[in-house]
Amino acid sequence: MNWEQPQMIERSAAQVGALDEQAMAAARARQASLTKPPGSLGRLEELAIWLAGVTGRPIPPPLSRRAVLVLAADHGVATRGVSAYPREVTAQMVYNFAAGGAAINALAGSVGARVVVADLGVAADLSAGLGLRHHSVAPGTADMASGPAMTPAQARRSVEAGLALLEAEVARGLDVVCTGEMGIGNTTAAAAITATITGSAVEAVTGRGTGVDDARLQHKIDTIKRALERNRPDPTDALAVLAAVGGFEIGGLAGVILGAAARRIPVVLDGYIAGAAALLAVILCPAARAYLLAAHRSVEPGHARLLDHLRLTPLLDLHLRLGEGTGAVLALPLLDAALAAHAGMATFESAGIAGKTAD
Amino acid sequence: MNWEQPQMIERSAAQVGALDEQAMAAARARQASLTKPPGSLGRLEELAIWLAGVTGRPIPPPLSRRAVLVLAADHGVATRGVSAYPREVTAQMVYNFAAGGAAINALAGSVGARVVVADLGVAADLSAGLGLRHHSVAPGTADMASGPAMTPAQARRSVEAGLALLEAEVARGLDVVCTGEMGIGNTTAAAAITATITGSAVEAVTGRGTGVDDARLQHKIDTIKRALERNRPDPTDALAVLAAVGGFEIGGLAGVILGAAARRIPVVLDGYIAGAAALLAVILCPAARAYLLAAHRSVEPGHARLLDHLRLTPLLDLHLRLGEGTGAVLALPLLDAALAAHAGMATFESAGIAGKTAD
Repeated sequence: MNWEQPQMIERSAAQVGALDEQAMAAARARQASLTKPPGSLGRLEELAIWLAGVTGRPIPPPLSRRAVLVLAADHGVATRGVSAYPREVTAQMVYNFAAGGAAINALAGSVGARVVVADLGVAADLSAGLGLRHHSVAPGTADMASGPAMTPAQARRSVEAGLALLEAEVARGLDVVCTGEMGIGNTTAAAAITATITGSAVEAVTGRGTGVDDARLQHKIDTIKRALERNRPDPTDALAVLAAVGGFEIGGLAGVILGAAARRIPVVLDGYIAGAAALLAVILCPAARAYLLAAHRSVEPGHARLLDHLRLTPLLDLHLRLGEGTGAVLALPLLDAALAAHAGMATFESAGIAGKTAD
Repeated sequence: MNWEQPQMIERSAAQVGALDEQAMAAARARQASLTKPPGSLGRLEELAIWLAGVTGRPIPPPLSRRAVLVLAADHGVATRGVSAYPREVTAQMVYNFAAGGAAINALAGSVGARVVVADLGVAADLSAGLGLRHHSVAPGTADMASGPAMTPAQARRSVEAGLALLEAEVARGLDVVCTGEMGIGNTTAAAAITATITGSAVEAVTGRGTGVDDARLQHKIDTIKRALERNRPDPTDALAVLAAVGGFEIGGLAGVILGAAARRIPVVLDGYIAGAAALLAVILCPAARAYLLAAHRSVEPGHARLLDHLRLTPLLDLHLRLGEGTGAVLALPLLDAALAAHAGMATFESAGIAGKTAD
């Protein structure tokens, strides 16, 4: 129990409203009036209408202030060799983010998004001066295969850290948020969460992550099965699932999602880890689902299953499996394009163009 | 025969070289050294390597100078009611392009591409002062269902117009070119070309275009069948196919593709009409295929078949069916992102990050 901010999560969840149906109806009517065959801009039309619903504005302004929040944390289960990389890579990549050398720095730069890196629980002493947001819950989770990855209090604190992170970005100005993460071992946690919540077989939702071979993939599957047998989390209790199989960055992302939905800010989900966080967030607050955009379909096999469960259709399919928020930021130019067409196009009437002939 | 520029098409085709294998090998090696699991950026990695091959530079510079060429022309077959819109919409949309009110204006603006509109044969007197490129071959093609859509000389002239258009843009500065078009009735022409060249049944490659109902779709199929029976073009002779079923904008786009490939400029194809032009261009010059990127998979059923024939895998699938180049410009931010990661990321060595552990 966090005595300073009792029920912060529940309060945020209660603030999440429905999409603005009136703004969506107006946006839909506008789309039908623009100089193109009705429906011919496909998903771009849907995106514009969705953003109208999220923002409550029939013609939403450009999403100028954009951030990708990269939450980093370590996983106890990584010591079992479920990843192709050693655990210290989490901290090394945080330094890489701070130095601007990672993929997310390059991609966010190319779409004009700021990169905000947060330590949710990296197992290293990350010095000040890196420009990080310090929200470390603990130096890595415990090993999920030996017991719960974290305590109930830690689970709650990780989500609250995400809420706080989001609020800090709102204070800086935020029109759209992309989810990002780093944590060696976190596809193992995501698979454990996905298997639990969607009711899928562990084999069906466990992939090669950063690129393990067949033997390690089997070991990863066995480890997740053992963790789920040992912890048996209640699939309807998001914080219990989080506590059982971790990690801190996933809880943090659930908080980011919840906080953004409460603020009517569109959330662009990256891949598998972000999806697992969304599964948790939507249990905490079913209404938050409406604020989510699935940026892409990851190579991870569990991701498609998770998106089906969330009834989200990914925008891109570029065979990405990197994380960090890379897939999420790639969706931003499509949102920009959708809004540019929605706001900038002439109508049949204003342009004096003949409509469809009767069929 | 164009006496002024004999064999302009054949000369351009002869100038198209192979991709630069050395630059591609260097780009591939660089990708493997960057701070991410190998292959984890999926198609972005392929795009960077492809652009290295196109440009001959292992780290290609940003594609700053970008244009979408929107070629407009009318189709005699449109008088048979194969489209949901009347033929005068072609000219009306050209005015809309000139006024900046069309979807392509909004989308090109959102990705920083200039819009270049060319009259290849609109059946209207398009006044000067619209900023158009004037390359009208004739005021619309003839009706393909009654005879050839154009003469052999007109077919050649339309392709040459595309070559000239491309050269004019090269003179202004051009790092990447997107194909766009406008022409009421041109999905009928594209379907006729696709059926002829891929050997597909007309039914399998004919779609609803701007949105015709079942009865008109059947009429469209019957019209194409009649045109192909009447003209029986040799599928190995691109100019003969073009002359048989048109249109001038499709021939023009084939010229744009050929000219860009000869200049080692990447070509981003839009949807079905652009794909039909690519089928023609690749017959004229098989080496040109390597310079093509399929931006997206259109809703038109023939498009997927055409892409298979060209062995191109589309980047996006957004259920677009608008044309104008809208899908093509949407791919540009992905090329930007691919190059930003390729040029800007740290290497494992420079960032001091541990590599994969032995499997």
